[in-house]
Amino acid sequence: MRTALDCVPCLVRQSLDASRMVSADPGVHEQMVREMLGWLADADLRDSPPRMGQRLHQRLREVSGVADAYREAKDLHNALAASLLPDLRARVEAAEDPFDLAVRLAIAGNVIDLGVRGRVSGDEVRGSIEQALSEPVTGPIDELRDAVRSARDILYLADNCGEIVLDRLLIEQLPAGRVTVAVRGAPILNDATMADARAIGLTDIAAVIDNGSDAPGTILDDCSPAFQRRFAESDLVIAKGQGNFESLSDAPRTVFILFKVKCGVVAAHIGEPEGSHVVARSGA
Amino acid sequence: MRTALDCVPCLVRQSLDASRMVSADPGVHEQMVREMLGWLADADLRDSPPRMGQRLHQRLREVSGVADAYREAKDLHNALAASLLPDLRARVEAAEDPFDLAVRLAIAGNVIDLGVRGRVSGDEVRGSIEQALSEPVTGPIDELRDAVRSARDILYLADNCGEIVLDRLLIEQLPAGRVTVAVRGAPILNDATMADARAIGLTDIAAVIDNGSDAPGTILDDCSPAFQRRFAESDLVIAKGQGNFESLSDAPRTVFILFKVKCGVVAAHIGEPEGSHVVARSGA
Repeated sequence: MRTALDCVPCLVRQSLDASRMVSADPGVHEQMVREMLGWLADADLRDSPPRMGQRLHQRLREVSGVADAYREAKDLHNALAASLLPDLRARVEAAEDPFDLAVRLAIAGNVIDLGVRGRVSGDEVRGSIEQALSEPVTGPIDELRDAVRSARDILYLADNCGEIVLDRLLIEQLPAGRVTVAVRGAPILNDATMADARAIGLTDIAAVIDNGSDAPGTILDDCSPAFQRRFAESDLVIAKGQGNFESLSDAPRTVFILFKVKCGVVAAHIGEPEGSHVVARSGA
Repeated sequence: MRTALDCVPCLVRQSLDASRMVSADPGVHEQMVREMLGWLADADLRDSPPRMGQRLHQRLREVSGVADAYREAKDLHNALAASLLPDLRARVEAAEDPFDLAVRLAIAGNVIDLGVRGRVSGDEVRGSIEQALSEPVTGPIDELRDAVRSARDILYLADNCGEIVLDRLLIEQLPAGRVTVAVRGAPILNDATMADARAIGLTDIAAVIDNGSDAPGTILDDCSPAFQRRFAESDLVIAKGQGNFESLSDAPRTVFILFKVKCGVVAAHIGEPEGSHVVARSGA
């Protein structure tokens, strides 16, 4: 998905939010906003929004010297989601259709996204979960169910901290021994990395790899050759989050992308209202 | 008031909204957004937001060849407000404190602002009027009342179309023969010009001048020498609208600015919540 003109003011706003997250110095905030404006003035809008976000955060790390500014927020979100997990797992196990409920909860977890807004509260996470329990999921969930049944190996692209804890519920519904989870290759926003996969015990129930990239999405040509091979060769790829949608909507293979629609540009792109819980089937 | 970093994404968004107002060509939209990004990357943020808006709209007129893109919207807003006028005038005349009610209604009219958002509906105008009738106006309204009583000549800086119709209610409460109304010197956004003052009959009840500038505010050094003299020499200056607040908050004389607070930056600046109806006493 290319960057829309409507994404541009949002990216400028993100540069301000993110600079305030890594530094208390107004001079740094102004420098980052001005750099973002300068980049965007000449940017190739065929690049996806996550590419823009990646450049912003790479530069922020250079300027601030802070490698992982969202560490505290990430720990907080992992702990918040972990506190909800036992009850939610019991609900999944008791559900008439555990797969369906696990899909819903994995999508609900996608509310924990610090790219779209600067803060996410516990109440918002709980509200998103309640919404997920009652509202329909749009998209080919039965096609996904069939694909899961017939796949020998499944690649699951994780998204954010906190969210990755709720992903466990869905991963537990996938055939044991056939799932590899991929996390980001380095810290970016509140996206989950290998440290988070270990911290929340995901490494105990599935193989976990990193994608070699620090983009807040999956920009294939920025990922490691090993990841690219896995991406091409897996029977089924499931991806989480709007950043993965933005970067994989034109992927060279089928990808099922589970996410919450968080802005008007993506809403218009897929023809579903903002706030929708969606399973999108993208790519070739 | 200088341009805050938080104004920057909003100005980028305004450039997109405004370009869509003057042209259906996505190429023009992209050109205008890129030009705005380029300007802002190197802009002197000590300039006020109306200066940025002025530059944007000057360039839009050059690119599009459209001198007065908001003409239709302006006629619509003037007509909408005119349809409300007889009832509102009757309410003012019957009010226990007609001056107070006229101030409230003049501020309520300031909801008609196409700079902050792309569209304003009749329902929003009516809602703003209802709000004005019930909610308190913050600020030194009694000081304004005293200043009106003792002033031999009053300069009233108008703001937007539609709004200028409701201004009549307040102008009718000012001492007859002592009021000069100033409108913008050329079309900018939905701001009122001499054509509007004539169309709504304002020229029948007060002297009307233009300020010689096409900024969506009152940037003194961009105004005509004649206007600058009037501004300096009048006993009392009353200004309407957030654009006038942004450009006159550091004016070299006292100005009473009546407006509705429409964004977080101005809200933080004056310490009142967004949506507040305010009389601000600015300047020396």
